[in-house]
Amino acid sequence: MTTVNQSLINMPKTYLFAEIARRVSEFSAANPSANLLRLGIGDVTRPLVPAVLSAMHAAVDEMGTAAGFRGYPPYEGYSFLRDDIAKYDYQQRGISISADEIFVSDGAKSDTSSFIEILGLENDIAVCDPVYPVYVDSNAMAGRAGEPDGEGRYRKLVYMPCTPQNGFVPLPPKKTADIIYLCYPNNPTGAVATRQQLKQWVDYANERQALILYDSAYEAYITEADIPRSIFEIEGARTCAVEFRSFSKNAGFTGTRCAYTVIPQTLCLNGHSLHALWMRRQSTKFNGVSYITQRGAQAIYTPEGAAQVRENIAYYLQNAATIRDGLRKAGLEVYGGTNAPYVWLKTPDNQLSWDFFDRLLTQAHVVGTPGVGFGSHGEGFFRLTGFGSQEVTQEAVSRITANL
Amino acid sequence: MTTVNQSLINMPKTYLFAEIARRVSEFSAANPSANLLRLGIGDVTRPLVPAVLSAMHAAVDEMGTAAGFRGYPPYEGYSFLRDDIAKYDYQQRGISISADEIFVSDGAKSDTSSFIEILGLENDIAVCDPVYPVYVDSNAMAGRAGEPDGEGRYRKLVYMPCTPQNGFVPLPPKKTADIIYLCYPNNPTGAVATRQQLKQWVDYANERQALILYDSAYEAYITEADIPRSIFEIEGARTCAVEFRSFSKNAGFTGTRCAYTVIPQTLCLNGHSLHALWMRRQSTKFNGVSYITQRGAQAIYTPEGAAQVRENIAYYLQNAATIRDGLRKAGLEVYGGTNAPYVWLKTPDNQLSWDFFDRLLTQAHVVGTPGVGFGSHGEGFFRLTGFGSQEVTQEAVSRITANL
Repeated sequence: MTTVNQSLINMPKTYLFAEIARRVSEFSAANPSANLLRLGIGDVTRPLVPAVLSAMHAAVDEMGTAAGFRGYPPYEGYSFLRDDIAKYDYQQRGISISADEIFVSDGAKSDTSSFIEILGLENDIAVCDPVYPVYVDSNAMAGRAGEPDGEGRYRKLVYMPCTPQNGFVPLPPKKTADIIYLCYPNNPTGAVATRQQLKQWVDYANERQALILYDSAYEAYITEADIPRSIFEIEGARTCAVEFRSFSKNAGFTGTRCAYTVIPQTLCLNGHSLHALWMRRQSTKFNGVSYITQRGAQAIYTPEGAAQVRENIAYYLQNAATIRDGLRKAGLEVYGGTNAPYVWLKTPDNQLSWDFFDRLLTQAHVVGTPGVGFGSHGEGFFRLTGFGSQEVTQEAVSRITANL
Repeated sequence: MTTVNQSLINMPKTYLFAEIARRVSEFSAANPSANLLRLGIGDVTRPLVPAVLSAMHAAVDEMGTAAGFRGYPPYEGYSFLRDDIAKYDYQQRGISISADEIFVSDGAKSDTSSFIEILGLENDIAVCDPVYPVYVDSNAMAGRAGEPDGEGRYRKLVYMPCTPQNGFVPLPPKKTADIIYLCYPNNPTGAVATRQQLKQWVDYANERQALILYDSAYEAYITEADIPRSIFEIEGARTCAVEFRSFSKNAGFTGTRCAYTVIPQTLCLNGHSLHALWMRRQSTKFNGVSYITQRGAQAIYTPEGAAQVRENIAYYLQNAATIRDGLRKAGLEVYGGTNAPYVWLKTPDNQLSWDFFDRLLTQAHVVGTPGVGFGSHGEGFFRLTGFGSQEVTQEAVSRITANL
């Protein structure tokens, strides 16, 4: 008799965004005339930029000709895209990463959730709390997180509290941690890590032969010059870190699907090259990214494409600033929104996150994300995003402040 | 100290197509003027058809407008595509599959290699021999296949020989098999399974609560009316089978990336819905397929798109017939090539597969695939594909027959 994966069965059923969707649709059904403003899910709303559109049209045309048709893409991505990534995202910023250290994929979610497949089951895993749920769920599903403790945590994971006191950047834990997930600019808190903070992590990892899985999907939102955009700006990172990047939040590719992962050739665990192991994993379980999509992604490295993309990022950052400044002025304790599209706020009167969610939904008709959905240290916090339109954002801030 | 996945380390290093590439590039370097004809890898060569191009251009334009822009796609695919798949690939052929049983993905390789993630580690797994290497490698990588035995097999897998004697369709094994991979039309042998043969499998699976993972990526190549195109044509399959399909080989999407998996709502293991478990897996480790790609895939269900795609399939099948008939006429023992793009031939004089590979490469300058690369029962066989151009195919057959 065939059995199912028991770890998957044991996982708590409710997924954060599914529960939000349920409450929203229940409210909408009861209040069909309510004009809901959605600042919850971290999905972009601005159209693809003209440079990307032109590149994709040209690629579609190529695929319609005998000479231009492309079959299976390289597992690691086309050279034209990897060369531009290495040049513009790393080398021009003085970061030593070469094209042959880059793997193009269909999404940072695919890569961050699958990367553990090349690592041993016995590793101790550390995650931030609050945290992007995918890191936890992908480990839980693979039987790597231990049993759920009934309170939303897994027994084998090391949770590192991220609070206003530590600026939402934890110190390396006293407990052993072999694999450490870090994400800066952070989802959900909008916090960034300084050079010194990341240096502590890199030193910790090198001393203990631990591995840092660094998610910098939001690096394009960094506005302050001294904040590192890549873990590879930190000395020593090439022997202890992997970096995940995405075209979703800079180029608006959430619906177009392209991302990349950087694995230094110098990164070995017990003599084994992670680059070689990931290549083996990708060539067995993945068949590359569409040629048309990769040509679209490449277009953001042209002068026009880069300028157009910067404009969209500035637009979302302006929204984040509108939320941050508006709510701060109204007396709320607010974090993020400066180097990230996310604003993380302390709920007024220490309300529970879901209570505040219900209050905003029913009174202000605004949808956000309850902080506790990202982990127990998110309790009493709430996430809003700058990914809406300017009009929706301004209206949402007015409604929230009027209902405090 | 962080450890790597030991099962991955233990896997034999040489991958079939990598070894072919190595020998070809060595030969090319030594013989730069040789005009090599490649009938090895199963990659299509005909351009995307006009209906697909138009649909993709229109979708690119939509993504450039505020009203038409789409963010994250549904994990399971857009309704417009799932509805057409259900209608044209199933319901119009009298097969009871509904749109909500279909999951759109970026490739059948992704799905066939990841599906085991929702199944228990303790299951016994049966594969054909010869076999598409991904089924074996994905299990080996996940520690589900046991140790390699030093002769290219894994100790925990049940291998089912596929030979001319059984028409390359094995009977259900005497040993226990919980998860059974079947692929018809078959890669690499080009064989098909009859209704009666599949019925035996479905009955076996239902009796033992086993699960059939049915790969029908090549169903568009079936030319004989009585050959089933889907496992769901067989009574009882809705309680024991999952089906994998792809747009790669019918619509030429190897470089565009779109596929789908069918999981009946009626398929439960020990009370657990596989449909629900796969949805949970996909929503955690995958973020859907590009809107533009899904619109392109949908275009093959329009009357024009369907006609254009049929023309390409007929072209490849004509090539397969050229190989099949040409080599048969030259006295070789030849299989496949009628309901599949693949021709599977017995090497002359019982040559070993790799010896015949080297002989064709060095004497005829033709690249094929050694049968032993697909499993030990592929020894003494060789695969050629109909995916080249008509000119290359004819020339290759002339050269092979001249060098026998």
